[in-house]
Amino acid sequence: MEKENTEFTHFNEAGRSRMVDVSEKNITERVAVAKGAISMKPETLKKIMAGQMKKGDVLGVAQIAGIMGVKRTSDLIPMCHNIFISGSDIAFEIDEANAIINIEATVKNTGKTGVEIEALMAVSVAALTIYDMCKAVDREMVISEICVMKKSGGKSGTFIRNKKLEEQK
Amino acid sequence: MEKENTEFTHFNEAGRSRMVDVSEKNITERVAVAKGAISMKPETLKKIMAGQMKKGDVLGVAQIAGIMGVKRTSDLIPMCHNIFISGSDIAFEIDEANAIINIEATVKNTGKTGVEIEALMAVSVAALTIYDMCKAVDREMVISEICVMKKSGGKSGTFIRNKKLEEQK
Amino acid sequence: MEKENTEFTHFNEAGRSRMVDVSEKNITERVAVAKGAISMKPETLKKIMAGQMKKGDVLGVAQIAGIMGVKRTSDLIPMCHNIFISGSDIAFEIDEANAIINIEATVKNTGKTGVEIEALMAVSVAALTIYDMCKAVDREMVISEICVMKKSGGKSGTFIRNKKLEEQK
Amino acid sequence: MEKENTEFTHFNEAGRSRMVDVSEKNITERVAVAKGAISMKPETLKKIMAGQMKKGDVLGVAQIAGIMGVKRTSDLIPMCHNIFISGSDIAFEIDEANAIINIEATVKNTGKTGVEIEALMAVSVAALTIYDMCKAVDREMVISEICVMKKSGGKSGTFIRNKKLEEQK
Amino acid sequence: MEKENTEFTHFNEAGRSRMVDVSEKNITERVAVAKGAISMKPETLKKIMAGQMKKGDVLGVAQIAGIMGVKRTSDLIPMCHNIFISGSDIAFEIDEANAIINIEATVKNTGKTGVEIEALMAVSVAALTIYDMCKAVDREMVISEICVMKKSGGKSGTFIRNKKLEEQK
Amino acid sequence: MEKENTEFTHFNEAGRSRMVDVSEKNITERVAVAKGAISMKPETLKKIMAGQMKKGDVLGVAQIAGIMGVKRTSDLIPMCHNIFISGSDIAFEIDEANAIINIEATVKNTGKTGVEIEALMAVSVAALTIYDMCKAVDREMVISEICVMKKSGGKSGTFIRNKKLEEQK
Repeated sequence: MEKENTEFTHFNEAGRSRMVDVSEKNITERVAVAKGAISMKPETLKKIMAGQMKKGDVLGVAQIAGIMGVKRTSDLIPMCHNIFISGSDIAFEIDEANAIINIEATVKNTGKTGVEIEALMAVSVAALTIYDMCKAVDREMVISEICVMKKSGGKSGTFIRNKKLEEQK
Repeated sequence: MEKENTEFTHFNEAGRSRMVDVSEKNITERVAVAKGAISMKPETLKKIMAGQMKKGDVLGVAQIAGIMGVKRTSDLIPMCHNIFISGSDIAFEIDEANAIINIEATVKNTGKTGVEIEALMAVSVAALTIYDMCKAVDREMVISEICVMKKSGGKSGTFIRNKKLEEQK
Repeated sequence: MEKENTEFTHFNEAGRSRMVDVSEKNITERVAVAKGAISMKPETLKKIMAGQMKKGDVLGVAQIAGIMGVKRTSDLIPMCHNIFISGSDIAFEIDEANAIINIEATVKNTGKTGVEIEALMAVSVAALTIYDMCKAVDREMVISEICVMKKSGGKSGTFIRNKKLEEQK
Repeated sequence: MEKENTEFTHFNEAGRSRMVDVSEKNITERVAVAKGAISMKPETLKKIMAGQMKKGDVLGVAQIAGIMGVKRTSDLIPMCHNIFISGSDIAFEIDEANAIINIEATVKNTGKTGVEIEALMAVSVAALTIYDMCKAVDREMVISEICVMKKSGGKSGTFIRNKKLEEQK
Repeated sequence: MEKENTEFTHFNEAGRSRMVDVSEKNITERVAVAKGAISMKPETLKKIMAGQMKKGDVLGVAQIAGIMGVKRTSDLIPMCHNIFISGSDIAFEIDEANAIINIEATVKNTGKTGVEIEALMAVSVAALTIYDMCKAVDREMVISEICVMKKSGGKSGTFIRNKKLEEQK
Repeated sequence: MEKENTEFTHFNEAGRSRMVDVSEKNITERVAVAKGAISMKPETLKKIMAGQMKKGDVLGVAQIAGIMGVKRTSDLIPMCHNIFISGSDIAFEIDEANAIINIEATVKNTGKTGVEIEALMAVSVAALTIYDMCKAVDREMVISEICVMKKSGGKSGTFIRNKKLEEQK
């Protein structure tokens, strides 16, 4: 694993932004996992959980939005490379005690740059979709703790988040 | 100010998602303000601040990405109406002590639905762009506390966030 | 109800395509309803129906895709105006005897041009999504009978399809 | 040629949709051919044919729309991979006796997933464009018989549609 | 007609770009006309003209691309408002003596901001499409003299280009 | 270096446009450099230069727009292949004497088709963004001399523009 860059690579000599040249990089299998959370009123979460059972599946819509968002990442993030995504999935975990939905996205590609931003985008779009679907009943939802948990492949090797989020704060 | 809906309006009688019919709604001036934060290593923030002074303006790129993201909101959020945006701005506030950049987006429209999701999208895309520009030097950045601070206009009237984020947690 | 045009309005004097000038048209409430069908092997339909009950809701994905497709219509159909959509919904009806899923989309807008193409797009994208989700088990699915059932609003007034599809064939 | 899947691969263990992981698949040359038809009033077809000769080439516009639609497939079909398209063409065949235009699209790629959906999208968008260009003179057009005729490449090998459409109905 | 701004309105107090707030502006009918030219080898122009007569209509493709480009303007130009376009047309004039194709685009809308950028985008995309279609036979084509000829509507009133392009150079 | 095509390859046997089949082409490293210029009133250029120093960086916005435009090229140019871009950069050179900003874009990819159109798109979108940001103070800006300076890689080999633009006119 090589040592970390110490300069921002996204700027050219004139100090202006550029899309980094990755043509010399190797094509490798890459995976990124990102996480995030959306907290809400307990009543809102109850409604979401009820919908899953019977009708009106908020998380089903958020799942699709997140996966579609992965494919639009390079349209939205200016210096992000447009890449072929080989697979993408999202998992929701409901923390009823704290009225929180945890979101975890996994994205894979085979290429010259990785998919961290794509995984973070999946989490963000899924969280925003939950907000959109529920805003009529709860405007105080908060989206938090969006971060990369793990990534592998590429020159910088494997990264595993080693600080707990709680400690970091 | 009418009372809040108690049902999710984004589902039809079959329990499937729909784009809510707003054709009977009035056209009003609407504003939404959303906030969020990205925390990072103190060294990362120092580099960002240095860039602003001299060259390599990370926040300038994030600003543009956030504003462009506002216009793509309905492409990404499945049940979100496509609307004409009348104005959009983003402000960054640097909290050097805590190595945090606070992001605040304001979006305006004149229409039948509001711009809360658009403001949240601006904050999210700006934060993701900061992550993308700085990830070579800091992979442990965390995006947090994305929420709506205020919105006005429309049938449900004015909303002002009345719980502090810290209390809520 | 005015009499039908006898010329294609989408061509200019040079015989080249143009986006028709609607600036003189009135803003009215408009609705369009389109239909279509996808036929498949009985086993495929059984799997789709099983998924709805328990897990893997093909029609839920198709619903979202169709509604999102409505918002992209003017990106895809060259001379189609980009318009604000005020509402959009899709209904599926399962004809088990014939192994067919009937799809009906309703789209509304308030504007100078109508939403027939948007409703047809919703049906098409929903049908293509069903194909995509099921193609690993059935490559012989056929998408058929996509047509406008009804439209109202605008200068040309109300249209209700008056020939049965079977008779027409 | 391996045997067909018997399960929908587009759902994860939680029963939610995912973009299938194709990272282990081989890169092969792939071709897909899809067909479809749009039927109309004989007068409408006469006008289209007249336009081809002289001015106002409806099919020329439909051709371009269909080819551009191929490149947007993964934006519209939720679980569809975004892929590099190596070539794309559309052919129209006019059946004057039945007032029908037959549409055939061929799409090629070199990759880990095929282009059936892309070929079906080309046919659908071309047909919708014909509808859009002609709707002022004929609202009763019907789009039908959209299906995959042939595909080759990939793990599941070559597929050639072996049932005539007429027999199937 | 008010006097011209003397400051760039696209920057906020922090010196960062913003989408100008037009919510206080009046809705008026607006038209913009832009022009541009592409010069090429005489043989290239002959081939284009031959195609128009018989087969392979380069300008037909450029026309459609330009009109579709109008609708994507706000996706590409960062601070440009997303607006409803009420009509759009392009005219080509062939200057055989100089081996030049002149391109003129007219765009209309009814709204709070005008369509100058949209008209310039139509010309640019049409010119780029001509380049793309002909590059295999002529790589030395040059796109020039893209400018706004006229615009009307809005607070700043009517503008008619009063310097000839030749004089300006 | 093979000899140039003498026919337009973007049309099929029916004389209709198609996306050229590149599946037989080799994957090579490709680079394209394009140029262009925007001329303006001397006062406008002074304001732009002042902004760079202090606040309101027009060229910073144009840089980002141009780079993002590269990634959207195949959405806008009908027969252009959608490709993975490996790097993209833009340089501005200010010619104060003539009140002109020269724009040079470099785009790289590794693939079966090149990036000339992508480089031209970068220049065009950057120039249009400068126009958009400055139009409130100067409506007479002219975008000119957009052309390919150099390209390498691919079957047709290296091209270097060998006529000066001034001579050509």
